[in-house]
Amino acid sequence: MKNNTLAEIAKVLAEKQNILIFPHINMDGDALGSAAALCKGLRDLGKNCFILIEDDIPGNLLFLDKGYTTRDQDIMENPEISICVDCGEEKRFPKRAETFRKADITVCIDHHATTRYICDYNYVDSSRAATGELIYDLLCIMGVTIDKEIGEAVFAAITTDTGNFQYSNTSKRSHEIMAELYDAGIDANGISIELYENMRIEKILIKNKVLSTLELVAGGKGAICYMTEAMLTETGATGDETDGVVQELRSISGVEIAAFLKEQPDGRVKASLRSKRYADVAAIASAFGGGGHIRAAGCTLDCSLDEAMALIKEKMTESL
Amino acid sequence: MKNNTLAEIAKVLAEKQNILIFPHINMDGDALGSAAALCKGLRDLGKNCFILIEDDIPGNLLFLDKGYTTRDQDIMENPEISICVDCGEEKRFPKRAETFRKADITVCIDHHATTRYICDYNYVDSSRAATGELIYDLLCIMGVTIDKEIGEAVFAAITTDTGNFQYSNTSKRSHEIMAELYDAGIDANGISIELYENMRIEKILIKNKVLSTLELVAGGKGAICYMTEAMLTETGATGDETDGVVQELRSISGVEIAAFLKEQPDGRVKASLRSKRYADVAAIASAFGGGGHIRAAGCTLDCSLDEAMALIKEKMTESL
Repeated sequence: MKNNTLAEIAKVLAEKQNILIFPHINMDGDALGSAAALCKGLRDLGKNCFILIEDDIPGNLLFLDKGYTTRDQDIMENPEISICVDCGEEKRFPKRAETFRKADITVCIDHHATTRYICDYNYVDSSRAATGELIYDLLCIMGVTIDKEIGEAVFAAITTDTGNFQYSNTSKRSHEIMAELYDAGIDANGISIELYENMRIEKILIKNKVLSTLELVAGGKGAICYMTEAMLTETGATGDETDGVVQELRSISGVEIAAFLKEQPDGRVKASLRSKRYADVAAIASAFGGGGHIRAAGCTLDCSLDEAMALIKEKMTESL
Repeated sequence: MKNNTLAEIAKVLAEKQNILIFPHINMDGDALGSAAALCKGLRDLGKNCFILIEDDIPGNLLFLDKGYTTRDQDIMENPEISICVDCGEEKRFPKRAETFRKADITVCIDHHATTRYICDYNYVDSSRAATGELIYDLLCIMGVTIDKEIGEAVFAAITTDTGNFQYSNTSKRSHEIMAELYDAGIDANGISIELYENMRIEKILIKNKVLSTLELVAGGKGAICYMTEAMLTETGATGDETDGVVQELRSISGVEIAAFLKEQPDGRVKASLRSKRYADVAAIASAFGGGGHIRAAGCTLDCSLDEAMALIKEKMTESL
């Protein structure tokens, strides 16, 4: 197995008719945006194409599915090509892995550095900010007209995966593609409202509860807060609705390390750690059996929330 | 007075040596980013150039000032050119208006639709997302090399004024410029951290207090919350640190109109109103003697906070 070119993949796709697309579970804007853009493009070329999913589409991404997704693993009797997008491991589409392998040819299009070449054809480019960029390039090679709908799906993919063009993965090419998408008449602001102004009120309520536990440590260089299971019950929020809290802590002036501790249903405590410029939070996480990157890491502690808070605060202070 | 071309303005600047730049009061990323990029570019061409300011630079924009700003109105004995950037009315630089007029030639570079041609030379283009875009174009015309520092100042200007490329003012040209800035080696992520991860902790505290007053009205189509003067005292926050609260309310799923009421030191109540897709909040604001745009408006009510809450809720419900 090796890395192919997009031109080789375009050729393979051009020759076949029945194509299934596999975004990863816990779909994000890049996974579903890429899948939707690819599905629309392939259908425009006359292909029989569906996006096969196994879990729910998040509410703020529902607009991307214009009749493309299905949970019916038998939607196609003889899929000729299976394409996984924004992922390259079967554990990212576990309940669909068998169907994935059923196709004559498997293809992977992804931008994750950890992805290995598991398919017959692979295009993995970790220098790119989003799989949506790769799908855009592929569709252009295949001669698909980038219309408003495809353009908006690609925009959704790129803007979510680049943190609205703020993350360091954003490149010259990201903006070049964006400039081209405007020629397709995209309504970037309309899509942005779909993506970001579709927040459940429970998310504000739980964030408010969590942020009211905010404490500074190490003379203001560390910020920490926690969530209890009771807070979820009180607000009706789901655990993932606290996503973003740790980034908000990090955005406090003077804060280098931010930590967010979540009580789990099993009583253990999950810690998310972020650093801003120099601190190594992977080292803190690994001290508790976790891991990650220098700027973003996590671990799970088998103790009470109070104990976990004390332990993490101590480690934060040590490393600051 | 008329609108000139950037080429005409480039020619005027090329001919003179002593140049003062005037960003507006309450500097934002576009005002100071544009001023800094222009100042660096003109100095690179050998000009004697300063940015004259009259109020404090917000903490998150201090990084843009690499020895360019001064409050000394006599820094130049005989300024030949005064340029106001991102504004075109003297009330936007009231304490510097006299110095502005002292120059032989006045120039205005702005993107606000309300700006009239008050200077000897004006370039006002309201189709552009940020004054930073105009400064970029001007510097290119003048033959300035867009280096990392100029590129980062232009990025700061564009990303802040476009809401990180999400607002409807963002255009193909915004992204084309961004693509070109990457050639200058900009560290967009580093600048983004300066701009957005420099938040005073008081901002989190006041936001938390304000959001704890959140109420839904009109069956969830309206969201409203308030701030009292006491909340400012308790948290140590400044009034402008609640900026962004009304946008956060609007981002709740199902909410069409968001309202945020602020008790003023004089006892009156200032209301900020936003709508998401169809409601006309300018109509609500004008019912109370205020005004604004369809999607963003405001008014000041001469009554108690309780009364103001009741009045605004009633009007919101009526229009939803």
